[in-house]
Amino acid sequence: MIILLKPRVPQKKTDELVDWLRSKGLDVHRSVGQYQTVLGLIGDTSRVDADLLSGLEIVEKVQRVSEPFKMANRKFHEADTCVETGPFRVGGGQFALLAGPCSVESEEQILQVARAVKQAGATALRGGAFKPRTSPYAFQGLGADGIELLLKAKAETGLPIVTEIMNASHLPLFEQVDIIQVGARNMQNFELLKELGRLRKPILLKRGLANTVQELLMSAEYILAGGNEQVILCERGIRTFETVTRNTLDLSAVPALKELTHLPVVVDPSHATGVARYVPPLALAATAAGADGLLIEVHNRPERALCDGPQSLTPEQFSSLADRVFKLRDTLGNA
Amino acid sequence: MIILLKPRVPQKKTDELVDWLRSKGLDVHRSVGQYQTVLGLIGDTSRVDADLLSGLEIVEKVQRVSEPFKMANRKFHEADTCVETGPFRVGGGQFALLAGPCSVESEEQILQVARAVKQAGATALRGGAFKPRTSPYAFQGLGADGIELLLKAKAETGLPIVTEIMNASHLPLFEQVDIIQVGARNMQNFELLKELGRLRKPILLKRGLANTVQELLMSAEYILAGGNEQVILCERGIRTFETVTRNTLDLSAVPALKELTHLPVVVDPSHATGVARYVPPLALAATAAGADGLLIEVHNRPERALCDGPQSLTPEQFSSLADRVFKLRDTLGNA
Amino acid sequence: MIILLKPRVPQKKTDELVDWLRSKGLDVHRSVGQYQTVLGLIGDTSRVDADLLSGLEIVEKVQRVSEPFKMANRKFHEADTCVETGPFRVGGGQFALLAGPCSVESEEQILQVARAVKQAGATALRGGAFKPRTSPYAFQGLGADGIELLLKAKAETGLPIVTEIMNASHLPLFEQVDIIQVGARNMQNFELLKELGRLRKPILLKRGLANTVQELLMSAEYILAGGNEQVILCERGIRTFETVTRNTLDLSAVPALKELTHLPVVVDPSHATGVARYVPPLALAATAAGADGLLIEVHNRPERALCDGPQSLTPEQFSSLADRVFKLRDTLGNA
Amino acid sequence: MIILLKPRVPQKKTDELVDWLRSKGLDVHRSVGQYQTVLGLIGDTSRVDADLLSGLEIVEKVQRVSEPFKMANRKFHEADTCVETGPFRVGGGQFALLAGPCSVESEEQILQVARAVKQAGATALRGGAFKPRTSPYAFQGLGADGIELLLKAKAETGLPIVTEIMNASHLPLFEQVDIIQVGARNMQNFELLKELGRLRKPILLKRGLANTVQELLMSAEYILAGGNEQVILCERGIRTFETVTRNTLDLSAVPALKELTHLPVVVDPSHATGVARYVPPLALAATAAGADGLLIEVHNRPERALCDGPQSLTPEQFSSLADRVFKLRDTLGNA
Repeated sequence: MIILLKPRVPQKKTDELVDWLRSKGLDVHRSVGQYQTVLGLIGDTSRVDADLLSGLEIVEKVQRVSEPFKMANRKFHEADTCVETGPFRVGGGQFALLAGPCSVESEEQILQVARAVKQAGATALRGGAFKPRTSPYAFQGLGADGIELLLKAKAETGLPIVTEIMNASHLPLFEQVDIIQVGARNMQNFELLKELGRLRKPILLKRGLANTVQELLMSAEYILAGGNEQVILCERGIRTFETVTRNTLDLSAVPALKELTHLPVVVDPSHATGVARYVPPLALAATAAGADGLLIEVHNRPERALCDGPQSLTPEQFSSLADRVFKLRDTLGNA
Repeated sequence: MIILLKPRVPQKKTDELVDWLRSKGLDVHRSVGQYQTVLGLIGDTSRVDADLLSGLEIVEKVQRVSEPFKMANRKFHEADTCVETGPFRVGGGQFALLAGPCSVESEEQILQVARAVKQAGATALRGGAFKPRTSPYAFQGLGADGIELLLKAKAETGLPIVTEIMNASHLPLFEQVDIIQVGARNMQNFELLKELGRLRKPILLKRGLANTVQELLMSAEYILAGGNEQVILCERGIRTFETVTRNTLDLSAVPALKELTHLPVVVDPSHATGVARYVPPLALAATAAGADGLLIEVHNRPERALCDGPQSLTPEQFSSLADRVFKLRDTLGNA
Repeated sequence: MIILLKPRVPQKKTDELVDWLRSKGLDVHRSVGQYQTVLGLIGDTSRVDADLLSGLEIVEKVQRVSEPFKMANRKFHEADTCVETGPFRVGGGQFALLAGPCSVESEEQILQVARAVKQAGATALRGGAFKPRTSPYAFQGLGADGIELLLKAKAETGLPIVTEIMNASHLPLFEQVDIIQVGARNMQNFELLKELGRLRKPILLKRGLANTVQELLMSAEYILAGGNEQVILCERGIRTFETVTRNTLDLSAVPALKELTHLPVVVDPSHATGVARYVPPLALAATAAGADGLLIEVHNRPERALCDGPQSLTPEQFSSLADRVFKLRDTLGNA
Repeated sequence: MIILLKPRVPQKKTDELVDWLRSKGLDVHRSVGQYQTVLGLIGDTSRVDADLLSGLEIVEKVQRVSEPFKMANRKFHEADTCVETGPFRVGGGQFALLAGPCSVESEEQILQVARAVKQAGATALRGGAFKPRTSPYAFQGLGADGIELLLKAKAETGLPIVTEIMNASHLPLFEQVDIIQVGARNMQNFELLKELGRLRKPILLKRGLANTVQELLMSAEYILAGGNEQVILCERGIRTFETVTRNTLDLSAVPALKELTHLPVVVDPSHATGVARYVPPLALAATAAGADGLLIEVHNRPERALCDGPQSLTPEQFSSLADRVFKLRDTLGNA
């Protein structure tokens, strides 16, 4: 961490600050320039609050040069983490294909989709039981019943299930859920993250619409710091000025995250774009960029498309996409 | 709501869609063009899911022409809402000045700040007891003890208190809190909003960093729809590419919100900018733009500024700012 | 185009507007609702100024349902455009690999890079002679001398050359340049676009940092409307709040552009990310997303890397990337 | 400037870099930490290319701690600059009110508006002769004839005129124009900026939609470095995800710019919002925030509003706004 002092700071004030920093266990190097002094902090600065330092009257600017996350940091944990649950694997060379409908709606629906995506190569079944909706008047999901239906689909197909939690008080309902999803809008619901850190179960953490790659890692750090090391990161688009897609899928985040952290990184092109016909090209792109897996929305109603999300693929489209994804991975050597 | 159909849609499919829409209680007007047909939906479309319609194979585009919020909508509630609690008033011509420290830290600190801001004209005391922090290693607030200290300050000064809630399970601790704040990161924590809709107590709802004015109103709608009509909206900056301030304060949101809704609108320049010396000019600007109130961070440590936020004013700075704000309102006729 | 009138507009005013619109050659359909009237405009609305209509006192909102671009629109030109010059082809199934240094610096440098990228499979040589630089104190390129050096490299290798123009007054210097590049900062330099519309030579038009996909197409329309039909579009990242990469590469723009227009679309991952080690994964991703080509920065100084851009690949890295790109295209069937 | 080296860089490589930096006239201080070394550069780093340094293999990160602009920098020029031309003054306590129509359309129009705004207290007349338009099919302005009409209005009213230049080749037409405006889309048209640097005439430089405050200052630096010291900066909104206004007016830029530079700062709420009814509150807000002036769009057609921009005020609205602006400045002590 680098602290640039303002011009003409009295020596005494500088000494006080340096003493205080040293009392926190940090090494401090001074570079005294013609106009201004720069302090270089060496040591574990991940617990230093840069905002507080910026607030000091004698400080002009504070800049971190090392990352404020530790347990998620590849510098301190070089090998890829592979998150596992039952037959499911993601990370460390293992590719995951999580597929299913936006919302669980009926037993028939979820069973049909589950069979279809399993057949096509999916390694987990996703489906919303509790749905975060912008409008209080929109359908909020089947709740506990939705989870029951997902478990039936798991029982029949053997596919592990992934579903979103919106409230720590619902945790008892998630006991048999294999992977718990934290949605983009809850990425900085720190109270929820702390609760999930107490579990020993994979968490699929989606990046918030206005959150940086570093903030995603800080939220992962909340879960890891609680003792739960099974975190899967998910890029699902950020909010920008562009309106041709619902959000802007940030595929640069894939190589950036793979470099910064050992945790697995999956990509959700369905929610990012909100447009079914852009999902296959972007799913292939995410795979080529080095993602460890994909989340794809799949519906099962050729006959009445009225209520399916605009970003959903049919089972046939998904199957064709899955084939291309696997071929692409073979070609690129799973790297 | 306007539905643009794709070119060359079979008559039969169009008829089916029109029938289905009419079965939902909507009037549908068809405009048949040379290439494409446009459907105009008249009636209460606030409960129609535009995303679902966009997903239909025969639909090219869906555009809302009316707002999806109802209870927050000024069209259906022309007069300004004035939110009241004890001596506190905001909206309908009543200006509120909410001031206090970022975090409650000690009895001495909160009492000193409370006395100082009351003296300067503040109408409520703000202070964080539960703090949302990006890093799991940062100070998370005094929690229940912090609320106790705020209540002591209230007892002494008579100032109503405002503090942030991060989890519905903490609600019992907030029984004597006058105004409950929902932070930017929880603006779309819909489970929390639903719980707050059950209360009969003012809620200060902060705009999320990546949320539009319309989404802010939809989140207010969650609370209103639950029966709690005392919602105060707060603009506190959005996330953009600019880095000279922490966030970009969007003062256009003030006249836009005042036009769209009857709810009071306050502005928080302290968190938006993260820079104390920009707070006074932007507090004046917010007042001139027509805000119903201000949230200002004030600390009380001339002697050891080490731990105060970089965006905090001293009591003296706050007092001078308050004077200017009141003078400005007098000049502009409180309009 | 849809015009939503305000509530309670007098019949006479509505009639006047409808008459005026009809006088512009448009069909107007009225949908009279309970509160508000909607006008649907059918016909060629690409020349109607939506902003002007929004300004009418009786108008609440104007929404375009069709695109304001014509010559670039795939609806009116279904087949892919293939842009050709000499041996170079891009679009319509032809893939282009444009590679070279950020700046032309010396004869030795540009010849070495040209030979190396040709060897690796590049189909054009890129290199900056006139350089747009944020700082007036930064190196601004070799100018006319840079173009001379590019032409030498072309003479030796046969590679067509691409270089950026910053000012229409420089056009005489570009007579032998095969493809003229318009940089992101000049995407809406409409005077320059008009001049380029008078040429009969390929233009590589880069998307501006704050420009939408639709605005990119409108800028292409400027060139096309002038009679120059050889426009190549280039996605090179947009500006967002994320800082882990220089800009955010928007790969969703690739399928979106391929759907909206018949023009070829290439991607520049080097400038988008500003980080050499992210270039290969994103180049592969762009290819998988369906791009018609890539722009890749390549330098040639293993021995003194001091002045090469942080986003440049070495010739060896480029060669290995090119192999993977071609393999990927074979696998995915060049689709 | 701070350079963080990668872990485990050989001593020899570090020495080479340090030597090279010293050869550029910089002092270099080394802070050798447990894992990594930090170099602090002291001296005039405004001409050091941070991007080039970042590209070095041994460098992990480069961070500027001082601003890369010099002539625009308040650190080296403490007193406010007041830009003057004829009776016009802006900066250094002088407030400017620039008003007029979006486009010059006819002699009658521009004369009427000029008289009206002068009457209301405007200190300059603005009006577009050359218009940057997204669509090639939209009205592009009257060009040279428009400038003639502005000069007539100046002759009659004595108001200095401001109009936009889009191409350096038009400069001869601007000989009698008092203040030349550079539009947002040309803020980084560096060739144009260089030409304007050769003039000795005020330049009104508008911030680009995707440009930071620092980049605005770097573009001003282009003009200043050419010897033209009369630059007026203009905040006119940036592009964000919010759609309730056309752009997001960034009023925090006002105190930030006033702190960083000595140049005058004016605000254009008309183009920023695109909504006439939001212009008065935001004009007042800009004034309260400390702006040195305002650009306001005013039209003169009560009888046929058909072609006026949605962001234009009538002369009556402008006059009432001007009164309030002047009262507000009186109240706040012109500070």
